[in-house]
Amino acid sequence: MKTATKQVLKHHICCQSNNRISWNLFTSETGHFVGCGFYAKMLFRCWSSAASFFLHKRGLQSLQMVYAEYGDPSKVLHERTEELKPLSKGELRYKMLAASINPSDINQVQGVYPVKPPLPAVGGGDCVMKVEELGPEVKEFQVGDWAIPSHPGFGAWRTCGITTPEHLIKVNSKLPAQYAATLSVNPSTAYRMLKDYVKLGAGDAVLQNAANSAVGQLIIQLARHFGHKTVNIIRDKNDGGKTAEYLRSLGADYVVTDTQFKEESKRIFGELGPPKLALNCVSGRSTLYLAGALAPRGKLVTYGGMSKQALQIPSGALIFKNIQVLGFWLTDWDQKPENRQQRIQMLDELSELALSGKLKMPLYESVPFKDFRRAMEESLTGTGKKKMLVFD
Amino acid sequence: MKTATKQVLKHHICCQSNNRISWNLFTSETGHFVGCGFYAKMLFRCWSSAASFFLHKRGLQSLQMVYAEYGDPSKVLHERTEELKPLSKGELRYKMLAASINPSDINQVQGVYPVKPPLPAVGGGDCVMKVEELGPEVKEFQVGDWAIPSHPGFGAWRTCGITTPEHLIKVNSKLPAQYAATLSVNPSTAYRMLKDYVKLGAGDAVLQNAANSAVGQLIIQLARHFGHKTVNIIRDKNDGGKTAEYLRSLGADYVVTDTQFKEESKRIFGELGPPKLALNCVSGRSTLYLAGALAPRGKLVTYGGMSKQALQIPSGALIFKNIQVLGFWLTDWDQKPENRQQRIQMLDELSELALSGKLKMPLYESVPFKDFRRAMEESLTGTGKKKMLVFD
Repeated sequence: MKTATKQVLKHHICCQSNNRISWNLFTSETGHFVGCGFYAKMLFRCWSSAASFFLHKRGLQSLQMVYAEYGDPSKVLHERTEELKPLSKGELRYKMLAASINPSDINQVQGVYPVKPPLPAVGGGDCVMKVEELGPEVKEFQVGDWAIPSHPGFGAWRTCGITTPEHLIKVNSKLPAQYAATLSVNPSTAYRMLKDYVKLGAGDAVLQNAANSAVGQLIIQLARHFGHKTVNIIRDKNDGGKTAEYLRSLGADYVVTDTQFKEESKRIFGELGPPKLALNCVSGRSTLYLAGALAPRGKLVTYGGMSKQALQIPSGALIFKNIQVLGFWLTDWDQKPENRQQRIQMLDELSELALSGKLKMPLYESVPFKDFRRAMEESLTGTGKKKMLVFD
Repeated sequence: MKTATKQVLKHHICCQSNNRISWNLFTSETGHFVGCGFYAKMLFRCWSSAASFFLHKRGLQSLQMVYAEYGDPSKVLHERTEELKPLSKGELRYKMLAASINPSDINQVQGVYPVKPPLPAVGGGDCVMKVEELGPEVKEFQVGDWAIPSHPGFGAWRTCGITTPEHLIKVNSKLPAQYAATLSVNPSTAYRMLKDYVKLGAGDAVLQNAANSAVGQLIIQLARHFGHKTVNIIRDKNDGGKTAEYLRSLGADYVVTDTQFKEESKRIFGELGPPKLALNCVSGRSTLYLAGALAPRGKLVTYGGMSKQALQIPSGALIFKNIQVLGFWLTDWDQKPENRQQRIQMLDELSELALSGKLKMPLYESVPFKDFRRAMEESLTGTGKKKMLVFD
């Protein structure tokens, strides 16, 4: 079964990349006359494969990475080809342009993420699509428009598909596809955390750990754009200043290692004033120091836990400084219908910032969809850069 | 100097407890005639001591436990006698009825508490006083009224004093003095935490650790009065069921040890529904389990840190369940002028509940003020019950 699906994958990858059909499937294994049954079978296979070819040429056959059970993504994900039906009223057909592999996508396949689409499910969430065909009565989109999913667990790892407009949000088609595919998660996370927790004025300090993460880099750039100062903590073990230099080039005001922060935080916040907002992607002992540095009534917002340890919060900071320890999950924010309009505005603003060069997206490695397994393997082992699947 | 103040203390304690003067001070050490100087000196001492006697009998001489520097309470606290001046406009004179020794009072003397009255300061905060004399134009109180301090760091460890009405809140004089003296802290803390964080309905579950603490016992009783269910965690090392039995007699719905909670929380909250509010006085690993049990968007409120360890909060509970980790400090709430009216209403309600028998105050050991040093020593070493100083 697995071999068969692999053959189908090769067949379609071949179609996709060389624009011609591999005819292997149409030859009998022996080349001998084996009676009417054989010819009938051969004729049927010939017809179905030719139909598949034309469907695929019209973008009506979707190659997908699917999982039918939770588990190790390198084991449970398998290829599937789906014939796309003619569009019904209110439906539209899209072609995938780019889709990323995020830790949350991996956790979803592993079954350890709170978003659990019904199985079997196409993997992946963040992507950008191009609208290719409109069904009757679709007015929200034009052919050629670009869109990103409006809901989590969309199923991004597929060459094309059919959906309805409420599952999509239009984005600026002038953006590079890789940028557009990541707009909906990391930049939005950075944006909302800077906007929704504390009313920050010009020159107000924002403190963050994991400053070199994708979100961390976007926080630096957005904070600079909004006029805030950032104090950025990176790991003690780093590349001897290159990371700090890169973050400063993005607009970081202070970049310190964990150890430097413990020694210098008093001086830094003596200059800047204590931060009202601290953003945490590490947890563990790191939050002891974030909480300790926060201003009275300051907020510590957690959006990740890279150390895989619980946050440590001193009781005194909660009781006597009245700090608040909160969490942010973009999926939860995105899912609220009342945020839809605000989300569209935010994505427009983020697109403008990216187009004007004020927002550099974190670097990705582009990987053709046919090399999905390598991309996944490297994502699982944490080797190389974050992966962006591209579709020709 | 220290010996001198001790003698003065003994002298006054003697006055207080036996209603007569110890005349030791008026005898010469030799008993011989030593000239006019001696008689003049003796006459002066005689006069001043007699004056002191009458002042004290009228309650105009205040014996106080004072600290002029921060440090070990058994070392830095010393006795002082203060002559009370005649009342000015807007002042009133009070007699102390009862005053407690709380951990926060000890921390204040140690200099590790955020409330720092100007030094030298009279120690102690929670107390109940009886108004004994009104200065001109005082209309807020009558002679005989009972009052508690309206501000922290009042200086409760004194036999009597002069203050102004805005530093006091009237309380019901039908209460036992020991009850009234503790109204302003523990019951108010329990009350506010149940009222101000989560809108709880009838039958809603409240989870707490340190359920046997003074505040814990009050939470159980107030929650029962408000119609909520309590799940109460006590230490693994306890007295073999007596504590659980006592807490159940106060109205606790579930009493479990730390270990039992880990095993049974699913079953308990399967029956009750997950709690929207968890109250933490322990911190450390205990909060891992409180946070884990909380309902989505639930609140974990910290009012103490008995384990002297930082809280541990799982990142996932913040991100995916969107729980909030907050702190409560009654002093902060009390200090806000906008809460004054609400505070008076709350104290009235708590007094009614205590008078009607619905609210049992946690048990204290009453200690005469003259035995202050023993009471402090036992408070510092944690031996015996919490101490309530009483004044005859």
